[in-house]
Parts: sequence; structure tokens; C-alpha cells
Amino acid sequence: MSLHPDRLFPADPGTREVARHLYAEVADLPIISPHGHVPPVWLAEDTPFVDPTSMLITPDHYITRLLHSNGVDLGDVGVGRGTLSEEASREAFRIFCRHWSVYRGTPMKLWFETQLVQVFETDLVPSERTSDNLYDVIAGWIGQESSRPRALMESFDIAFLATTDDPCDDLTHHRVLAQDPTFTRTVVPTFRPDRYLEPAAPAWNEDVDRLAGVANGSCDTYAGWVSAMENRRAYFKEHGAVSTDHSHRDLGTEPLEPAEAERLYGRARQGRASGVDGDRLRRHMVTEMVRMATEDGLTMTLHPAVHRNHHTPTYERFGPDVGGDIPMAVEVTRALAPALQRFGTDPRLTLVVFTIDETVYSRELAPLAGFYPSLRVGVPWWFIDAPEAITRFRAAVTESAGFTRTSGFIDDTRAFLSIPARHDMARRLDSGFLARLVAEHRLTEDEALETVRYLVQTQPREVFGL
Amino acid sequence: MSLHPDRLFPADPGTREVARHLYAEVADLPIISPHGHVPPVWLAEDTPFVDPTSMLITPDHYITRLLHSNGVDLGDVGVGRGTLSEEASREAFRIFCRHWSVYRGTPMKLWFETQLVQVFETDLVPSERTSDNLYDVIAGWIGQESSRPRALMESFDIAFLATTDDPCDDLTHHRVLAQDPTFTRTVVPTFRPDRYLEPAAPAWNEDVDRLAGVANGSCDTYAGWVSAMENRRAYFKEHGAVSTDHSHRDLGTEPLEPAEAERLYGRARQGRASGVDGDRLRRHMVTEMVRMATEDGLTMTLHPAVHRNHHTPTYERFGPDVGGDIPMAVEVTRALAPALQRFGTDPRLTLVVFTIDETVYSRELAPLAGFYPSLRVGVPWWFIDAPEAITRFRAAVTESAGFTRTSGFIDDTRAFLSIPARHDMARRLDSGFLARLVAEHRLTEDEALETVRYLVQTQPREVFGL
Amino acid sequence: MSLHPDRLFPADPGTREVARHLYAEVADLPIISPHGHVPPVWLAEDTPFVDPTSMLITPDHYITRLLHSNGVDLGDVGVGRGTLSEEASREAFRIFCRHWSVYRGTPMKLWFETQLVQVFETDLVPSERTSDNLYDVIAGWIGQESSRPRALMESFDIAFLATTDDPCDDLTHHRVLAQDPTFTRTVVPTFRPDRYLEPAAPAWNEDVDRLAGVANGSCDTYAGWVSAMENRRAYFKEHGAVSTDHSHRDLGTEPLEPAEAERLYGRARQGRASGVDGDRLRRHMVTEMVRMATEDGLTMTLHPAVHRNHHTPTYERFGPDVGGDIPMAVEVTRALAPALQRFGTDPRLTLVVFTIDETVYSRELAPLAGFYPSLRVGVPWWFIDAPEAITRFRAAVTESAGFTRTSGFIDDTRAFLSIPARHDMARRLDSGFLARLVAEHRLTEDEALETVRYLVQTQPREVFGL
Repeated sequence: MSLHPDRLFPADPGTREVARHLYAEVADLPIISPHGHVPPVWLAEDTPFVDPTSMLITPDHYITRLLHSNGVDLGDVGVGRGTLSEEASREAFRIFCRHWSVYRGTPMKLWFETQLVQVFETDLVPSERTSDNLYDVIAGWIGQESSRPRALMESFDIAFLATTDDPCDDLTHHRVLAQDPTFTRTVVPTFRPDRYLEPAAPAWNEDVDRLAGVANGSCDTYAGWVSAMENRRAYFKEHGAVSTDHSHRDLGTEPLEPAEAERLYGRARQGRASGVDGDRLRRHMVTEMVRMATEDGLTMTLHPAVHRNHHTPTYERFGPDVGGDIPMAVEVTRALAPALQRFGTDPRLTLVVFTIDETVYSRELAPLAGFYPSLRVGVPWWFIDAPEAITRFRAAVTESAGFTRTSGFIDDTRAFLSIPARHDMARRLDSGFLARLVAEHRLTEDEALETVRYLVQTQPREVFGL
Repeated sequence: MSLHPDRLFPADPGTREVARHLYAEVADLPIISPHGHVPPVWLAEDTPFVDPTSMLITPDHYITRLLHSNGVDLGDVGVGRGTLSEEASREAFRIFCRHWSVYRGTPMKLWFETQLVQVFETDLVPSERTSDNLYDVIAGWIGQESSRPRALMESFDIAFLATTDDPCDDLTHHRVLAQDPTFTRTVVPTFRPDRYLEPAAPAWNEDVDRLAGVANGSCDTYAGWVSAMENRRAYFKEHGAVSTDHSHRDLGTEPLEPAEAERLYGRARQGRASGVDGDRLRRHMVTEMVRMATEDGLTMTLHPAVHRNHHTPTYERFGPDVGGDIPMAVEVTRALAPALQRFGTDPRLTLVVFTIDETVYSRELAPLAGFYPSLRVGVPWWFIDAPEAITRFRAAVTESAGFTRTSGFIDDTRAFLSIPARHDMARRLDSGFLARLVAEHRLTEDEALETVRYLVQTQPREVFGL
Repeated sequence: MSLHPDRLFPADPGTREVARHLYAEVADLPIISPHGHVPPVWLAEDTPFVDPTSMLITPDHYITRLLHSNGVDLGDVGVGRGTLSEEASREAFRIFCRHWSVYRGTPMKLWFETQLVQVFETDLVPSERTSDNLYDVIAGWIGQESSRPRALMESFDIAFLATTDDPCDDLTHHRVLAQDPTFTRTVVPTFRPDRYLEPAAPAWNEDVDRLAGVANGSCDTYAGWVSAMENRRAYFKEHGAVSTDHSHRDLGTEPLEPAEAERLYGRARQGRASGVDGDRLRRHMVTEMVRMATEDGLTMTLHPAVHRNHHTPTYERFGPDVGGDIPMAVEVTRALAPALQRFGTDPRLTLVVFTIDETVYSRELAPLAGFYPSLRVGVPWWFIDAPEAITRFRAAVTESAGFTRTSGFIDDTRAFLSIPARHDMARRLDSGFLARLVAEHRLTEDEALETVRYLVQTQPREVFGL
């Protein structure tokens, strides 16, 4: 196996030639990763990876879900089993290699191949036959000093990396990194307050109690909750945070009258919030977060409309994030109207709306982002962070919103080793899309060159205020 | 007119070259048709076709609907008129030929041209001028012994054909075929119980009475209805059935409490079920069918969200299936959750969900089929069983679900003579899609060859348990 | 800057060659513009344009919205400021030129470039540096006699132009044009009654009072309102109108019982209609308009599902049509069923349904237009009147509905100078789409030639009864 230098470029030779030029401009630029899920402790403690399976297979729900749908028990590839014995780890890796063909046509195949060639420097194609050999190659790689997370930040040339963190987190790991003069890369936290904004969720009261404690305040009233949130946002900002991240079932931002907000909040604190109460109060709280984002300048990213843990027995056995989250339709135009009425033209606000419902790209998101200076269309996220979908995204969004109203690429991954592969894919696809516009005489090559550099380098810095 | 050997392949010369190789691997493989609407009596009795119009035009709602929308009265092409006189048949055929240009850009044109060249061996282009000539050519063809349905099963190389049948059908025709040692092809029934699952429909009580009679049981209680259904499924399975087929307005599978099911069922048997009652009970019944499918292993196919007989006056004059069925939006993630909670990971279950709402491919169906081992994404069905749409389907589904989570091609047709053309189209388009992945260095040519063979031959056998 | 002769054609050389041939057939055909927003007074009085900014920037919400989202205050480009001083106009034009790069990838760039080269005959690329120079070039152009609207009708070869007019308009300007023997082009009004069909809108009663006055009738009863509408439609028809245009939040056509319609109408005339009342009565009124369209033969165009004036503060400061209208999802199959039941197969009716929710193309609109002879799928409108979207439209609609069930291109613009560029874009894209079908051997080149001529010339005449 080898990686073809023209991979992911359009097949038409003339267009491909242009794509090569554009890609060459950005191929080696440093990686900016303003949203993802790498655990900060890995970098703070420079934790070595343990074994190929727990590094590449078990924690990556992109990988495990397709194994599961093709008949593999999640437990057999280590999910929910903690540290695996050498034998179990090898066997899990063997299962993965035996199922290698199920990834054909998916981005997982492309990311994995890129890692095999560029990180592990092997040309082995995963299969039952090569499995043990491949396992050894990767295990050998793990044993090297240069394979530790901090060394990889250097060799991957990741200039900026944001993690995702609970508002109650004390951000020790980020402090360690910030204070270490030998660590020259930037790693910052992201404020992810979802659980504190779901007043009908079973654990909400407990979560809010903890929040109150950490914020040195009281959350007995809604005003107290607001103060605690503001307090923690400020704390995150002090520790380098550039954004907050939000994932709820819908994008509703209908505010409540202050008295109604207090009343519902009180009921919720007594554990008596109905599902409807919870939705109404959450929408009010989300609008409150938009207000805070306007005031403190933290970019606000929204990742809505996922039906989490669709299969309850799997959730009960293995917990969340094992592949059982399923997208739903989302509505944007009406849902965001209340918040945009109030803050949408405020120059301090940056709101990035992601979607896994592609229908809203041309119908709602691009028209909105083509009017509101605060709004950006998030690049394709989860499920659609793949070649065909990324190309559909550019085709759907650009004509209404141009290139300047998108977010810049985010990898959104916990699979640390796949970060360069994911960014490389995005750069190739944007180059290919722009090359087609050049081939169709809709852009000059100079305009395309300027645009691809803008997309890779300037736009993420602009959107996340770096 | 001739058929170009490269038809339907991508235009880019390099990609086309790969598509040719892939297609050559599968072009001559036998046809497996696990879902369609060919009347079994044709094969049991080897009924000769009557005339060109009643063979090609009148019964094919793909053809008649576009004539209708272009100003032709359905009666003028023989709809609802029984056997036509020679004169009327010729005149109807003339109307079709005169309107030949309205099919430009549609798959009907491609299927029809394939039949003209490959079945009738003529190069005449339909037009007012050629109409009579063409009619004679086809009428001559009909008169040949080799044009009888059984001979066509051979010359078309249809290895497996499923028909669609009412649960009360005694399956005589299938028995005749199974017991005939001279008939070496496989023709099996499909259990299609829709009418028995719509308790608010006017004819439901009468239908259920008939069901009770055929099943030698009583349908006075819900439990009786369940037994009768199980009885008939077993009967179908004994006669070779491999699947059941379901088409309701939505995909809801919310079960009722047993007592509530009995209560609603009782009301319905008294003819007092409201529309809402009917929906609730039907969703419960659909879940019951999922349970049965899990237990008896019959693959369950779902074809939801069609507004049947949209134009009542046309329905009253001509009956169903004349082109007046119109798709609606469908929701999958929440609708299937209850059934998938209970049976979604059971290895005995195979559930194939078709859609004519393309928005659910990347948003709901592929993510679900990429997690649940029981679930398959049905290939494009009705309205979207066409080149552009089939290509969109592969592009939308593959990145989340790979190639292994789809259903294999089904032709779903009552137009017997179009079956080879439809399968050929699917093979060409899958070859073209895979060729593009090869051209973009996302698959090797070997992987693509293995995949195209898998899609044409292995996958339908796997999904329908052949 | 120059315009490449192959712009917007597919990149594949073989396909492009076919596209060139097809386009050559239609490139120079006269423009038929059956729906748009050019003010008729311009032509009646042959009003010279005033300055580059008020001609090209300020009134064009396609242009201003992207400036706004990229941080420009609408007032700074002249919105809401009436006639600008030379200095202010130059400064506004400078702001636009400075932001030229934000239009990359949008159709606005292509339309503007086409105007620069073909209308103003300059090769200057807009930028801060060229702004004043470009301003002078355009200002110089404005000063010429040949730049007056009537001369442009000639040089642009616009054979037919429909404006959009209020039912109470006395159509003086159209009368002036019709009676002027020196003016050989056809300019007709379009009946746009939206405001009279929204009984819950604050200004409705006042509007209806005015309508009653103009129609010389009483609108105290619903029957009176119907008569007034019929009266004004007849007046428009006498003045050359070929169509009526409708834009409401949904496509609902559920009729009311006559007594209920009278009752709701009465409440509304007392100013007591709720939002729900307003919707119900409006849907009844829309069906009434379908009935009138069937009887008087005026083509009825529907442009549904826009959330108008999404940002209230902008609306309050600048009024409507400045870029703050945002699309919403739309439902067609059920919404139009009542009207189509009654009038859908009447040969006198032509109904054109436009959408900015692309999901309904393959799911609802094409299937409906492929059955109902009265129904046409409107070509892409607003936000999706752009290369990628127009290509998606043809790919989504053609397979179910063919080419004959669409509407012909409409430019829908108030930017008079962009009309040739918009029609040219549509001709190029249709040529490119057909060329791909030829390259894939789905159409012969002769069929494609006939089709592209049909789309450009015959279809709009047929659909709008010219």
C-alpha cells in the first residue's frame, strides 16, 4: 500500500493539475485545531500510548460502529473492558483487520491508511494474514520516544489544539502545559456546559450543585446559575479558552420572561421539571449563553440534533460514545431567530452552527450566515466529515455565503493520530473544489490560491479569535 | 438507434476506462430480483403477452404518469379499459410514440431503448412516423415461442424472482412452479400484509375476517390476529418466501401496552377506530411484525411515506397504481427507535429500509445502518431508481455505512421486460461510482472489483437469505 | 479581466465540446423574462440611471447582504438613504470594491463580471485601488443615450418582460408602453396580491378597503372580496398580464366551508383574526385564486416559505428587501392536495411551484409535476439561482419529470442590468447538463439540441401562455 500524491483530487486531468497547485500551497502549513476531543492529560503528562488496539480501535467510535454493524460485539474489540491483556489486544486488532474491507468507501479507510503510511511507515494492508505483523509494527512504533504526544504535536506540526472540558474542570493539565517553557505549542480548553443546560436531565441538580461549589456561589436561583456560568467562563478564558461548545437536541433560543425563567428554574431545582419545562428553560439558557458570548467574546459553537445513545441496552452495557448516536432533522431559521434578533449584528459575537442535517446548508445556514455578521456555517461535522459530503458542503454553502462565512476546518476528534490525516483530507478537498471553479472559469487561479490559503490559515484564526 | 457500450459511465476518459473493467466483471452475472411485482400467474401458466400496448404501456405507471402530465387522458392509453381492440391498442401505442420526447432525461427512456434493441432487436426510434412499424415489430416478437415468460426467465438469466402477494393468497401459482421439474428458475412469494395493518381503513374488518378464515383461526382478539399472521407467514415461508414487505405512511414502531392494544383492536373490530387509533395500532402491529421477523427470519422490507392516490377523481375512475402516488417526507431516527431498542441487535433480524425522501440517506439511514447489525439501507426505490439519484445514493450512504450495509439492487417492477435493463443500469452506475473512487485513489482497482461483484451477487443473497 | 468563452461549462474536454455546440444554438436567442421586479416606470419614462452605486449596489439585496455579513453597515452603501451625494456614492462604491473578494464562488461575482465586460466594456477588476476608476467608467456609461432602459431593452434583446405589481395599481406605466408605437418590446404587469390574502396582517383591513375602492365594489363580505379580486385580475389581463404571483409562508390550500369562510372573513374585517384564523382564511383564499386561475387562464406562480425580515431591527431601520429574508422548509404533497384535487387536471390551469427548499425537488415537486398536467416545477429561485444549485435542480427534477414539466428560466430580479448575465448563465448551465447526458450516452446530440432550444424558447412561452 502507498498513498497516491493525487488522492482525493478530481479525476479530470486539467482540474487535477490545478488542484495540485492549490494543494501545494497549503499542504505543509501548520495545523490549527480549534475544536476536538483529545484528553489534555495526554499532553500534560506526555503519556505514552499503551497498545495498538487501545490507541486506534477501542476509543474511536467511527471505527467501532462499523465493526458493530458488521456483526462484531463491541466487547470483543475492547469497548468497556479497560486495559486489555496482550492477547485480548491482539485478538481485537485481528478482528479489526479481518473486517478491513467494510471500511471501503469511508473516510475511516483513508485516515487509517494515511496513519499506516505516514505515521507507522508501513505498507502493510490490514487483513487477517497481516494482522499480527501490523500489530508488531505499531507496537514497535509506540515504544519510541518520538511517539509520545508532545513529540507528535511537533512532528504533526499542530500549532494550536483546543480540548473539550467540563465547566467544573480546574484545568490543571492546561495550566501545566501553559507553564512549561519547553512546550512551545498552544493547547487550550473549551467550555462545554451541556449538562448544566438540561434541567430535565436526571443528573442536572447534582451537576448544578457541583457547579455552585466550584464557582464559589449559590445556584439556588436562576441569577445564581448565571453568575456561576459567567464565573467559570471567565476562568476558562483566563486559561486560554477561545470558545464554548454546545450540543442539544434542537437549536431553540426562545427566551422566557425573567419571572418565568426563575419559576421554571425553581421547579427544576426541586427536581420537578417536566420534559417540556426542561426544553423551555434550556432554550432560555442557550440564549443566555449567546448573551455571554457577545460580552466575553468566546466563540460559541453549536452542534445540534443528535439522538444520543439510540440503543439503550448498548448504552447500559458500554456507556456513551461507542457509535450509537444518530442524527435527526434540525430547524435553524426559526430556532435561532430570537437570539439573532438580539445579538446577531453585534460585532463582538461569533456563532458557529454545525449540522449533520445537510438539508439546512443551502436552505437555512448559508442564507443566515450571508446576512448576519455574527454567524458562520460550521464545516462538515461527524458522519459528513468525509470527501463526498465535504464537497457537497462547499457546493451548497458557497453560492449563498461565499467562502468567508464558513468556520475553517475542525477535526472534532479524540483520535489524536488521525488529526493530520483529517486536516490533509480537508485541504485536498478544498483544493479540488476550488480547482473545479478555476476549470469552469468561475475563479482565476490567483483567486483560488488566495482562497485556499485563507481557508486553511486565516479563517480558523479569525473565527476562533486566535 | 443503438446502445452505446459506454452508456451511463462517467465521461472522464480515465474514470470511464476503470468503469469498463468493473462492469465487465458483472455484466453477465445472473439476475437476482428479491423484490418486485411480476404476477406469478404469468410464469405458472406461461401466459403469452397480448399486444405491445398492454405489455409495455398500459400497466406501467412510470410510463403512464408522464403521458398524463403531458396532457394525455389515461383512458386513451388503455388504462382501466381491459383488453383493447387492435385499433385501440395501435392508437394507444401511437400516442406513446408521439410523446417519446417527454421521456428525455428519464430512466424510462433508457429502459425502453434497452428493450427495443436487446429484446425486440429493432433500431427504430419511437415517433409518430415509426409507431405502426414498431408496433408490428413488437407484435411479431410477441408471437414467438421464445417470448413467453418462462423462456424469458431463461434468456434474461433471472436466477431468482420474488413476487408480491397477499397473506390470504393460497400461492397456487408458486406451488405449480415449485413442483414443475422443467422449470429450473426460482420464483418465490413475498408476504405483503399492509391492508391488515391499517385498522382505520374502511375495508380493514372485511380483510381481517378473510384473514381469519384463511388462517383457520379467529381474529376477534388481537392475540388472534397475531396468530393468524404468524400462521400465514409460516405458510409463505413453506412456499419459499424470503421476505415480507411493508408500506405505510410513516415508519412508527411505538408499541402499546398489551391491554391498550387489545382495547384499540376491539374498537377497530367494531369499526370504531379513529384515524389516530388506526395509526397507533398500526405502529404496534408493525413492531409485532419486527418481532415475528426476528423469530422466523423473514427479511422485512419497509417502503414508507407515500401519499397514495393523490388525485381522488383519477383513483375513482382508474383505481390505484396509475401514477398518482406521491412521496412525502419521512422520519427514521425516532420512528424506528422502539423496534430497534428491542430487536435491533438480534442477529436473526434483517430490516431493509427504503426511502423516497433522499434527505434521510446521510442524516438517518446510513448512521443507523452503520450501527445496527440488523439494518440495511435499501437501494433507491421508485422515482429515485434512476442514474442521478442512484449515484447520489451511493455518495450519500457509503461514507457513513460503507458498501456492506446496503440491500443489493431490487427492481421493484411489474414491467417484466424491463428487468434486465434495470439491473444493467444499476450495475453500470455502481461500476461508475466505484471507478470514480479508484480514479480519486480512494480504492484500488482490486478492491473495486471485489466490491462490484459483492454488490451484484453476494449482497442480495446475504440480505434476503438466499 | 475577461470572460472566458467556456465559462460554466463542465471541465471534461469531451463534455465541454458538446456543451459548446448546444450553447451556440441558444446563446443569441432573445430573452424572455416572464417574472421579475424591474420597475415599469423606468421603461415608461425611460429614466436614466443616476449613478453607479444606486444602479448596481444599493437596491440589490444579493449584493448588500454579503456586504452586511462581512461587517458593512447597510447605511454605508446607501441603503435607506435616498439619493446619495457624489461623495457618498463614490464611498459606497469603494466599500463594495474593497469587499470584492467576498463574492468569490457566488453567482453575484459572475453576474457582475459579465456586466463589467459586456455592458460597461471594461477589464478592470474591482478593488480598493481600481474603485474610483471603475466608478468613472460606469458613470460615463450612464451618461450615454444608449444606456437608457428602452435602449437597453433593445441591446439586451429582451423580447418579453413581466413586472410585478399591486392589484390596486392602475398600470399607467404599462398603458404608456403599450400605446407607444415606437416601443416594440413587450412589457406586461404581474398580479401580486399577497397582502390581500393575509387577514391577520396589521395592514390587511386598510389594504382591503383600498382594493374595494379600486374595484368599485364592496369588500364587506367574502363574496365581495372575491368579486374585487376577479375584477382586478380581469383589469390586469386586459393590460397584458399573463400571470399572478404568490408568496406565503406555506403552500396550504385547504378550503373552508363557505359559511366558515364568511365567518372568518367577517372577524378579520373587524380586526379580530388570530394568527391561526389568518392562516386558515389565507389557505382558503389561495385555493380561490387557483379556481380563478383555472377560469381566467392566468398562470399562477407560487414562491413559498420565506421568513421575511428575519432581523427586526434591520427591518425597522431599512425596511424590507435588504437581504434579511431567510428560507424555511416547505411541504408540498399534502399542502397542494386540496387544490389539485379540484383543479389539478383542468387543462386551463397552469401552476408553477418554486422552492428554496431543495429537498422537495425529487421528493415532491417532480413526482407531482410528473402526474398533474397543470403543475410545473419552477426553475431555481433566489439563493439557489446559481451554478451548483441549478445543476442540482436539473439532476433532481429531470429523472422523474423530464424536461417538459419545468417552467423555463425566470430571472426574478430588480437588477435590470444583470438580466442578460442571468439568462446567459442559465443557458450555459442547461447546455452543460445536457452535454453530460450526451457524453454519458443518455441523449443523442440531436435530442439535446432540440431540448436546449425548447428550454430557452418554447417552454417559457408555453408555461406563461405567450
